[in-house]
Amino acid sequence: MIIDLRSDTVTKPTPKMLEAMMQAKVGDDVYDEDETVNALEEKIANLFGKEKALFFPSGTMANQTAIKLHTNPGDQVICDKYAHIFNYEGGGASFNSGVSCNLLDGNRGMFTAEQVEEAINPPDFYHSPLTRLVEIENTTNKGGGACWDFDEILKIKSLCKTHNLGFHLDGARLWNALVAKNETTEQYGKAFDTISVCLSKGLGCPIGSVLVGDEAIMENAIRIRKILGGGMRQVGYLAAAGIYALDNHLNRLEEDHKKAKYLGELLKQSDCVKNVEPVETNIVIFELFKDKSEKLLKSLSEHQILITNMGNNKLRMVTHLHITDQQIDKVEKVIKSI
Amino acid sequence: MIIDLRSDTVTKPTPKMLEAMMQAKVGDDVYDEDETVNALEEKIANLFGKEKALFFPSGTMANQTAIKLHTNPGDQVICDKYAHIFNYEGGGASFNSGVSCNLLDGNRGMFTAEQVEEAINPPDFYHSPLTRLVEIENTTNKGGGACWDFDEILKIKSLCKTHNLGFHLDGARLWNALVAKNETTEQYGKAFDTISVCLSKGLGCPIGSVLVGDEAIMENAIRIRKILGGGMRQVGYLAAAGIYALDNHLNRLEEDHKKAKYLGELLKQSDCVKNVEPVETNIVIFELFKDKSEKLLKSLSEHQILITNMGNNKLRMVTHLHITDQQIDKVEKVIKSI
Amino acid sequence: MIIDLRSDTVTKPTPKMLEAMMQAKVGDDVYDEDETVNALEEKIANLFGKEKALFFPSGTMANQTAIKLHTNPGDQVICDKYAHIFNYEGGGASFNSGVSCNLLDGNRGMFTAEQVEEAINPPDFYHSPLTRLVEIENTTNKGGGACWDFDEILKIKSLCKTHNLGFHLDGARLWNALVAKNETTEQYGKAFDTISVCLSKGLGCPIGSVLVGDEAIMENAIRIRKILGGGMRQVGYLAAAGIYALDNHLNRLEEDHKKAKYLGELLKQSDCVKNVEPVETNIVIFELFKDKSEKLLKSLSEHQILITNMGNNKLRMVTHLHITDQQIDKVEKVIKSI
Amino acid sequence: MIIDLRSDTVTKPTPKMLEAMMQAKVGDDVYDEDETVNALEEKIANLFGKEKALFFPSGTMANQTAIKLHTNPGDQVICDKYAHIFNYEGGGASFNSGVSCNLLDGNRGMFTAEQVEEAINPPDFYHSPLTRLVEIENTTNKGGGACWDFDEILKIKSLCKTHNLGFHLDGARLWNALVAKNETTEQYGKAFDTISVCLSKGLGCPIGSVLVGDEAIMENAIRIRKILGGGMRQVGYLAAAGIYALDNHLNRLEEDHKKAKYLGELLKQSDCVKNVEPVETNIVIFELFKDKSEKLLKSLSEHQILITNMGNNKLRMVTHLHITDQQIDKVEKVIKSI
Repeated sequence: MIIDLRSDTVTKPTPKMLEAMMQAKVGDDVYDEDETVNALEEKIANLFGKEKALFFPSGTMANQTAIKLHTNPGDQVICDKYAHIFNYEGGGASFNSGVSCNLLDGNRGMFTAEQVEEAINPPDFYHSPLTRLVEIENTTNKGGGACWDFDEILKIKSLCKTHNLGFHLDGARLWNALVAKNETTEQYGKAFDTISVCLSKGLGCPIGSVLVGDEAIMENAIRIRKILGGGMRQVGYLAAAGIYALDNHLNRLEEDHKKAKYLGELLKQSDCVKNVEPVETNIVIFELFKDKSEKLLKSLSEHQILITNMGNNKLRMVTHLHITDQQIDKVEKVIKSI
Repeated sequence: MIIDLRSDTVTKPTPKMLEAMMQAKVGDDVYDEDETVNALEEKIANLFGKEKALFFPSGTMANQTAIKLHTNPGDQVICDKYAHIFNYEGGGASFNSGVSCNLLDGNRGMFTAEQVEEAINPPDFYHSPLTRLVEIENTTNKGGGACWDFDEILKIKSLCKTHNLGFHLDGARLWNALVAKNETTEQYGKAFDTISVCLSKGLGCPIGSVLVGDEAIMENAIRIRKILGGGMRQVGYLAAAGIYALDNHLNRLEEDHKKAKYLGELLKQSDCVKNVEPVETNIVIFELFKDKSEKLLKSLSEHQILITNMGNNKLRMVTHLHITDQQIDKVEKVIKSI
Repeated sequence: MIIDLRSDTVTKPTPKMLEAMMQAKVGDDVYDEDETVNALEEKIANLFGKEKALFFPSGTMANQTAIKLHTNPGDQVICDKYAHIFNYEGGGASFNSGVSCNLLDGNRGMFTAEQVEEAINPPDFYHSPLTRLVEIENTTNKGGGACWDFDEILKIKSLCKTHNLGFHLDGARLWNALVAKNETTEQYGKAFDTISVCLSKGLGCPIGSVLVGDEAIMENAIRIRKILGGGMRQVGYLAAAGIYALDNHLNRLEEDHKKAKYLGELLKQSDCVKNVEPVETNIVIFELFKDKSEKLLKSLSEHQILITNMGNNKLRMVTHLHITDQQIDKVEKVIKSI
Repeated sequence: MIIDLRSDTVTKPTPKMLEAMMQAKVGDDVYDEDETVNALEEKIANLFGKEKALFFPSGTMANQTAIKLHTNPGDQVICDKYAHIFNYEGGGASFNSGVSCNLLDGNRGMFTAEQVEEAINPPDFYHSPLTRLVEIENTTNKGGGACWDFDEILKIKSLCKTHNLGFHLDGARLWNALVAKNETTEQYGKAFDTISVCLSKGLGCPIGSVLVGDEAIMENAIRIRKILGGGMRQVGYLAAAGIYALDNHLNRLEEDHKKAKYLGELLKQSDCVKNVEPVETNIVIFELFKDKSEKLLKSLSEHQILITNMGNNKLRMVTHLHITDQQIDKVEKVIKSI
């Protein structure tokens, strides 16, 4: 049996989620008549204390729309050098919004308010791009599932207000951060102008992300979604999975975190492993000794244990809904056997 | 009971389609591991005799991607003044691809090869945009479901070859044209470089369009889809509906056409109706006498018969999967009673 | 000797203009230290009663900047089917601003307020592009130097206010309209949000256009000019020509108009000529009989009389600074000799 | 008298250059009839052994056009974190071309082939932007006039070939590098696909840059220039200055370099100065002790010696055509007097 630790995106709906999907009441969402998607949007808007939420077919489109809502062509976005919006959205920020990214040299994908302040271009100096938006990711993907210090977030928020900058959160794995740090959606809703959250990672839905914000900033979101081609018809089947997941899969993220931490400890004890990054949520990034890299990878592969190779002897394991205790036992045996 | 004649996009899956969806074998399509979406793409590529097909969350995204694949910013697209890509995709051609549209003054959304030839800008005259793409729609949406003469399509194809222009078909309702005119997907596959087809209109699926073309032109399609935010995860649930529809809902389009024609005849006999456009497929566009417009609209509304008001006393009815003989009888009674 | 009637852009500075250029006090305009360009900008801003004017290396860049100042990507501009911004700026409106053009079917490049009103998309219907800007050209280039009725301009202005649309004037040949219709820069300044005027056509300068508007709309103009690459250094040499021309070449446009009208009458009497469009300023557009077209063109060419072939047997003559009475006599002889 | 050490862009034409300008034979360059601009373009194309050269109103437009010629929207450009195209062109790379920049952490604006190799995204991994272009600057502006090692350039060239990347040189101050390192235009022509050179910095012209490259890559340059609004009419006046400068001002750059080095030595001896960056050409960047910064700046200001404040106690002096030995003496006295 395959043990798939590549990503938490590989999950398939549980039988109960699938049942919820199948029984969804749907309608044509282009006519705003899909009651299930409306219910999901309302539910998530309420969670964050925001006036408006909008369903998207992907986190990339939710983020790209947010960038467009905050900026004009030529503007600049401040984000981390590890940012998903810079590295893994196909160059979309420049393609869709015509903006550039001022990349900060953060720690595991997280930077300080001080770094932000230094990176803001003086608005009158028109030779440089106009700084308009600060974007952060929580948890950080390329940073190994690290969680931001909320106090630093508040400091950055304050800077954004002073300098009239938008503040967007790529919350692809925000649910994991909330559970890990015992934080609330409300406090994040207050800190950010816009937040994208993903339904198809830790929550286990097949498809979908949601962007939240207040009316003023979200006013054009549906227009941008239409332009990018994200307007869909009977979306309720997907939204139903989201509602089910929010009601049933949030708390269980803690189990994913426990398993990830267990894997992290396991790896630390392996002779093949040079370093394991701190495990805060459901992602484990570790580095192999160059000469022992091949052996470990081969052994995992032989036992159908799939993980992600990040290059430069760095590897990633991600725990999720489908990873059972038995699977962790199996991984333990394989690693210890090397 | 509501009789919804506004659009063929309002359909919900039949019980059997829903069953097919829920039994779909799915995987993470971003890893190219969703076997159902792969099967759908292969099925549609084969239908058209093209090397490659790609699933999209919407027809708009399929069309927008096609425009991008054929053009560079600054280029010009030749299409009809009624074209969906110009009128109903949010200005996406200019937003996503930076191109302008040279609109031809066609007849019910259809133009001639001669009109195309006159509209091509001389490629060396760099003051004018470079013409790169000709786009047609079949059946025409704003043109009332009219079907193109295939000989004219071939003439335009020939022009495109001579002038090195791409040729794209917005086939949102191509299935209706094929059934109405007894044409084949193969002949369309040969005539066009790229074709988008929709699963969520006459075919009755909840979500999805597919873009087909040969490898050379489609090479970057997945990259553009990613940038626009159309890369999704367990897409198989949506693809399964598509496969089911292609196997079971194609031939029944004829029934929609019959009903539409019946409605057309009915309307011709009404004293309120000034003109009914020729009914070729499942769309009926008719014009009311100004002074009788209100009466008819009120009566339809009272009987929960929904239709689309196109402005200027023009109205539209569209038949589809959910429109039964009983519903047509009801509409007949209401219209005759006025 | 060549008689160049192709365009009023071919003029070279007169000796006195050249002297003014040579003696210009210049500085680095990127540091805002070129006093001559500042003087020209102030002079033109004052002429139109606007708060701000900015020098551009071309009319295309002045227009393109204006479009960008008024719109966001995806928006739509209403203009005539003959509009220079659509036909002769390389597709720049879509390339630089990501907007589409809703082309009105005007008369000689001029349309009515009624046509504008019908062309405005409802702002809430997000499937259609958002209408943001109305643009007109005075005099019309492709329309043969026709002059707008100022009352119609005021009606359109009123519509723009009601619908919250920007109103831009491409005044490449506005000077000709002002002289021909005895209108003032002040009245145009009041009617439009932004106006571009050209120094290198009838006024006879080698290079340059100026965009005027009030602070609010012009605030970002210098930033857009920088991005497009229009920020230059010692611009005073070009600006000096502009100042000289405004002081010395404005009134003489009347002579160009007289000569153009004379040419128009001349052509009407020719057996080769099927039709001469009304001559209002310095442009004469006429149509040849198909079978006599070649003869006339050949004869003009033999006598080194250069004119512009607009295709479809349509031809254009433009009078300007360098066209003398003797040259007109010569043209008369040649035409009468055919 | 003001001593202007802020930038080499502040120069005004010498009397002889002005004479050359005013005697230029000009024509309408939009009709390709300006013989002086044609002569300049041919002269510069020949210097670099390239097939084509094109005049631009600014270095920004020449660079922006080059970026567009090499890339498609969504692509990525590799350049230094100090790059002018990223920092000082208003965000134009994203605005005009829709591309992002992958900034390398170079030394004084210069990086290694190894750094480039690591920064190239795998072309099949469509989640990341497609790498298409490497851009370098020589001399480096923000890097203090540093000159690249030509061997490193060749290594990067080789990488570009292997990975099918374009290679563009921002040669705003290439003339200074050529003189300082005794290199030739030919060798640079062979190393790069496109090169922009500036006429208005060390060479002392009022306006203008030129982009060179072979036909294949330059084919669309005139179209892009048109779209950006860089097509101008009687350009010969500006081109004449360029021809004069190439014939008369190239060798004298050595004097600027000597003066800059002299200033550098002078500053090293000052008690106020913490550090002077190596002076290789005509730019001197130095850092002041925080507590002595004000004193030195005040003193320079009192003596009308203008320099550029780069922030963080860093300052810049640039020598050029107008800086005389007497002015250097004056600066020496002022600095020594502090």
